[in-house]
Amino acid sequence: MNKVGGYDIEDLKPGMTASFAKTVTEADILMYAGVSCDINAVHLNEEYAKTTMFGGRIAHGMLTAGFISAVLANKLPGPGTIYLGQTLKFKAPVRIGDTVTATVTVREVVAEKKRVVLDAVCSVGGKAVLEGESTVMCTSVKD
Amino acid sequence: MNKVGGYDIEDLKPGMTASFAKTVTEADILMYAGVSCDINAVHLNEEYAKTTMFGGRIAHGMLTAGFISAVLANKLPGPGTIYLGQTLKFKAPVRIGDTVTATVTVREVVAEKKRVVLDAVCSVGGKAVLEGESTVMCTSVKD
Repeated sequence: MNKVGGYDIEDLKPGMTASFAKTVTEADILMYAGVSCDINAVHLNEEYAKTTMFGGRIAHGMLTAGFISAVLANKLPGPGTIYLGQTLKFKAPVRIGDTVTATVTVREVVAEKKRVVLDAVCSVGGKAVLEGESTVMCTSVKD
Repeated sequence: MNKVGGYDIEDLKPGMTASFAKTVTEADILMYAGVSCDINAVHLNEEYAKTTMFGGRIAHGMLTAGFISAVLANKLPGPGTIYLGQTLKFKAPVRIGDTVTATVTVREVVAEKKRVVLDAVCSVGGKAVLEGESTVMCTSVKD
C-alpha cells in the first residue's frame, strides 16, 4: 500500500476486483445535469421521456460512468491513482431508484510504466448497463 | 431537424461541428464528488493535492467528460440523441477556474443504423485536456 492507502503497482495482480454500489436518485440526476450542463429532456422531462423508447426519465450515461471513476479512485487501485483513459459502452438505461454496482477487475499490469488496465462494468440487478475498459497509473514502492 | 429540435441522421455530414464551453468551479467539483462518490483526495484536499505532481486540486476527469455528453445532447446531434459509447483519454489536468471547451465533429455517418461517430475534444486555452470518440444514435425522418 502507498502512503495514502491505495495499492502500489507491485501489489496488483490480474483478477483482483472491487465494487461500489449506489442507488441513483432524482437528486443525482438533477445535480449531474447542473454540473455537466447536459439537459437532454430524456433525463429531465418526464412527459417527453414517456414518449421515447425508454418510457420515462433515465439517468445520464456519463453519471453512471462516474461510479467507475469512484471505485478506481476509492478502492482499486485506490488513493494515489491517476486516471489515464476509459472506454464506455452504454448497454441499457438506468432509471431513478435503480441501484448501480460498478465493478473493476485488473486485467493487465504493466509494471515498468506503472500502468494498469482494468475491465469495468456497471450493472443493475445483475444486468450490465455499462461496460468498458479503464487505464490508470499507480504509485510504486520505488517512487 | 426532428420534432424536439435535434438533427436527424439525414441532416448530418462529416465535418459538422459544435462546441460548448464552461468554467469549472470549486462548486462543480464538490457537487460532482457528491454525485459520483469519487472522493479522490486530489480533487478535494488542497494540502494533499499540493504534494502531488499536479501541485493543487484538479477536476475529476469524468466531470470534464460530461461536457462532451452535454454538447452531444444539447447541440450536435442535439435533442433526441441516444448515447451509445465514448472513449476518453485524459491528457492534462483541469484546474478550478479553467474554462473547458468541449467540441465534437462528425467523422462518420452510418445512415442505415442511424449511427454517428464523432471526434470529441475538450480543451483549455487551446490545449487538449481530453480526447475521445463519441458514438450516438440519431433520429431519422423515417421514424
